[in-house]
Amino acid sequence: MFSTLSTSLSTVPQSPFPPLLYADTATSADQLYFSRVSVHDPFISFGAGQRRYTVQNALEFGRVKKARSVDEVLPLEDWVAKVRKRHPRSAIGPAEVIAELARSYRVKGFRVADDFPAALYLKLKKLGLALELADGPLFPERETKTTKEANAIREGNRLSSLGFTVAETILRESRIRGNELIYEKKVLTSERVQFAIESAILAEGGRSDDTIVAGGDQACDPHERGHGPLRSRELIIIDIFPRVLKTGYFGDMTRTYLRGRANEAQRQLRQAVFNAQQAAIKSVKAGVEGSHVHQQVLDVFDLGGYETTRGKNGSTGFFHGTGHGLGLDIHETPRVSGLVSAPLKKGTVVTIEPGLYYPGLGGCRIEDVVQVTARGAKLLSDHHYDWEIR
Amino acid sequence: MFSTLSTSLSTVPQSPFPPLLYADTATSADQLYFSRVSVHDPFISFGAGQRRYTVQNALEFGRVKKARSVDEVLPLEDWVAKVRKRHPRSAIGPAEVIAELARSYRVKGFRVADDFPAALYLKLKKLGLALELADGPLFPERETKTTKEANAIREGNRLSSLGFTVAETILRESRIRGNELIYEKKVLTSERVQFAIESAILAEGGRSDDTIVAGGDQACDPHERGHGPLRSRELIIIDIFPRVLKTGYFGDMTRTYLRGRANEAQRQLRQAVFNAQQAAIKSVKAGVEGSHVHQQVLDVFDLGGYETTRGKNGSTGFFHGTGHGLGLDIHETPRVSGLVSAPLKKGTVVTIEPGLYYPGLGGCRIEDVVQVTARGAKLLSDHHYDWEIR
Repeated sequence: MFSTLSTSLSTVPQSPFPPLLYADTATSADQLYFSRVSVHDPFISFGAGQRRYTVQNALEFGRVKKARSVDEVLPLEDWVAKVRKRHPRSAIGPAEVIAELARSYRVKGFRVADDFPAALYLKLKKLGLALELADGPLFPERETKTTKEANAIREGNRLSSLGFTVAETILRESRIRGNELIYEKKVLTSERVQFAIESAILAEGGRSDDTIVAGGDQACDPHERGHGPLRSRELIIIDIFPRVLKTGYFGDMTRTYLRGRANEAQRQLRQAVFNAQQAAIKSVKAGVEGSHVHQQVLDVFDLGGYETTRGKNGSTGFFHGTGHGLGLDIHETPRVSGLVSAPLKKGTVVTIEPGLYYPGLGGCRIEDVVQVTARGAKLLSDHHYDWEIR
Repeated sequence: MFSTLSTSLSTVPQSPFPPLLYADTATSADQLYFSRVSVHDPFISFGAGQRRYTVQNALEFGRVKKARSVDEVLPLEDWVAKVRKRHPRSAIGPAEVIAELARSYRVKGFRVADDFPAALYLKLKKLGLALELADGPLFPERETKTTKEANAIREGNRLSSLGFTVAETILRESRIRGNELIYEKKVLTSERVQFAIESAILAEGGRSDDTIVAGGDQACDPHERGHGPLRSRELIIIDIFPRVLKTGYFGDMTRTYLRGRANEAQRQLRQAVFNAQQAAIKSVKAGVEGSHVHQQVLDVFDLGGYETTRGKNGSTGFFHGTGHGLGLDIHETPRVSGLVSAPLKKGTVVTIEPGLYYPGLGGCRIEDVVQVTARGAKLLSDHHYDWEIR
């Protein structure tokens, strides 16, 4: 399923130990990156002598073998039987099977992710296996994307763009009745637009979970999905981050709309966010620090007099990072924020998504995806910035 | 969002320590169960003195606070500042924040899940915190479902049933042309039916990922989703396990269909699976062991002469468990299989889903969901068993 996207064991960094994973591919991007096939219950996979192995139970074995995504698929039941032969009386779990595999494949120790299950970690240690925590990403090479990976992300963003087109059509075709928007004879809601976006993306081979369509004050909580009626003359944030089913890679884009005529304060807010976003994109280049990119956003907002405050019930202004790495995870390294002082690497893919949020006035966020090159930022997302739908 | 479903700290078992979690709610059902609000990046939550706390960054704080799903929401930035005051020079991560929280709330140690992140576990130990691994479920009370939880699962199964109705309509309206099925002037594919099912469920407030619509030999890999043309006179397995967005609970049902006229071998195979499933359901009762329920299935298959074999490229016959616990996770404790010798508890919700798979003949699986009661099995799923669509 994921066979077009290459992982290589030889690019593994400093550690002398090959990787060991125990996770499912729905929740672990590392497992998906390593085993390149979709399996929804946790399973063992590991490297040994430049070869990649996964261990599958009878339920998954045939299917995973046919996928040919790793060098060898081992049948779990056979390995459980081997352990049982050696230790007829003890309880057998993943730890005992992994120890048996390490013995057979002559591996003295493994490198594991920081989020490797603690109980399994301790059992393996007890069984005498050397384990080295990654202390950072398990596969640092995941951060810089190949051309194929960049294209997979581009496809995710194509689905986001499709979602915006669907939403724009609905907003345009909605009739304004006072503060309300009427679509197909009903009051238009966030849920209606979310459904239209998500089903359009589903039809094109993607899955868009938790799509944000939030208007007015709701949009001032950046991760509020939005619910109930959407109103005319209010800023509406639409954030679409679909996963491409065939590859597992994500797209992630945001646009902010308004149906009707914007007032001056809304217009200025939107312009400030747009200017900040464009300035940030322009500043991206291999070797530049994430905090420098973030600073471009802060400068534009400062200049416009947009203050950030923190109160008892939440923050206003700009109170999140400028962006994050994107790939098999929706949020991955690196972060682009004030806290990051490491230089951006060539090939890294990040979002650039400043926003401003003021209850009463509303929220605005604009997000694109870029790949870092030696010369600047290469856009992997493409959708217009028209926002006022009169 | 999940506020109608109650968790209680007081039902926590033997351990003297309150729970500690560091996970997001999309991948951790424990975190969702405990914090009852949807947050897509890992965050800290913990118990102290019968109260439940979560720690949220500025991006999530306002929204999570409004959800009122825990006793108190703590702002992450304030706690990072507190740690910085005490240790001005050290790097600050979740471990340092957790240690500071433990100090302030006078908690000497925490109970953590077996899949708690290993790196964080080791850092907390180093910082002097006592940690106890759950060695089994972190919240054993998740296994037995309240009436509200059972109803949430029932709603999931209503969405599965809706999916079957959609699929039946498509199969019925398809025209048979030789081996092909023609629907809306095109060759009918697994993908077409999956899309119809998933978008219908989306419209009703659910999310059905990885819906299985697999015909012929494809269906002989039980977790193969199915792809390409569906054929007439072939068994088609449809397995739908949607998540209800409002509550986070899953439904999980399977039916097997055939468009056209079945042959005798198909008819017998289907009847054996149906008989096995009904026998297994009948045997469910509080106190009965999972392995006993599984045995009912084996007995019916033995009687019918349906053998199970294992070969180099996969297994044939019946080679998976009879069922699994269902709730906020699609697969949770208990398992209903030959390996399980613990008696089923009153209130537990499990699937009953025997299947037979023979390449050449095809695969058949039938799945319902039951809640274990003192008197027997209470069905939480409801859909007819008609399968031959002539």
